[in-house]
Amino acid sequence: MRIAELSRRSGVSVPTIKFYLREGLLAAGAHTSRNQSTYDETHERRLRLVRALIEVGGLSIAAVRRLLTAADVHTMLSEMQVVTVPPGTDDGTRNWADAAVAQLIARRGWRIRVDHPSARALAGVLVTAAQLGRKDFLALIDKYAVACADFAGVEIRSFGGFAEEMVVGTVLGDAAITALRRMAQGDALQESNLEVAGSA
Amino acid sequence: MRIAELSRRSGVSVPTIKFYLREGLLAAGAHTSRNQSTYDETHERRLRLVRALIEVGGLSIAAVRRLLTAADVHTMLSEMQVVTVPPGTDDGTRNWADAAVAQLIARRGWRIRVDHPSARALAGVLVTAAQLGRKDFLALIDKYAVACADFAGVEIRSFGGFAEEMVVGTVLGDAAITALRRMAQGDALQESNLEVAGSA
Repeated sequence: MRIAELSRRSGVSVPTIKFYLREGLLAAGAHTSRNQSTYDETHERRLRLVRALIEVGGLSIAAVRRLLTAADVHTMLSEMQVVTVPPGTDDGTRNWADAAVAQLIARRGWRIRVDHPSARALAGVLVTAAQLGRKDFLALIDKYAVACADFAGVEIRSFGGFAEEMVVGTVLGDAAITALRRMAQGDALQESNLEVAGSA
Repeated sequence: MRIAELSRRSGVSVPTIKFYLREGLLAAGAHTSRNQSTYDETHERRLRLVRALIEVGGLSIAAVRRLLTAADVHTMLSEMQVVTVPPGTDDGTRNWADAAVAQLIARRGWRIRVDHPSARALAGVLVTAAQLGRKDFLALIDKYAVACADFAGVEIRSFGGFAEEMVVGTVLGDAAITALRRMAQGDALQESNLEVAGSA
């Protein structure tokens, strides 16, 4: 198909498609003449994937390129969450967070290292919670960990070992969970408002 | 305390503190002379909160300001996830996603409207999944919804009805769940690699 048809089918404008071609997010089409190329279903599919990562995942062009060319998609997805232990954190808080993460990994029996990028990000979240006077946040972490462990097996099987499926599943999953948490909290707020009203 | 002491205690540089003061993220200190102000623990606490939202939540200055001045923090947090049904989506896919969201809300008994901003975001995620040929993603949504409902009551109680606690809990929770999902998936990948190796 011509670029105009690719645009119509994917809902992505021709200038945006040309931009993605220049940025290397989309492979060049087959040349049919000096200034015309033809595209096929693989281009349409890749274009939908790029749009999903940008629109739903909120990823930058550079992040999409890194993900689509990564040799190890799991590590790349983990490294994209850049939450670190803030500089100047006192040793006590840092050690508390590191120990909490190590204990969580041991308790869940997770076969990952304590320097897994996401384990470091979790330590950063815990340090931040402690600095906000919310060390009790640790209790919620355990509940989240049990649920995430429960999902993970199904998620990995649904990805079928394909890097592209893993990228899609992880990014769409993040967005779905964000939405669902707020929906469930919206319901729980109704209940807590009712309780407050009832006790007044 | 003077601004230098506030900087030392919070780990935020003096120029950054002055920027936050100009941007209205931090209330002005009490004037002690024509060009000097004094700050207290409420400033230090607010500064830590602003840093957490920016560093852990990845929020922009504008988003932090909107959140900190919002009358309804829950709605604001929901509206900040701007995933929409892509323009040009065919009616069949759009109706499938809308029906799936409405059925999920009914099945869970959630007391929220189908036009809750997060319900709209979820519809956008489902449309994107369908366009990527992954309508089966719907099965995972149900598992996520059960877990999010399970968290929500504890989360809302831990927020204690305070808007600031809700902002902190939601933003730190999002970051923690992102990290924990990747940790659990890292473990599940080990298992699936072992299975592949075992069957070879």
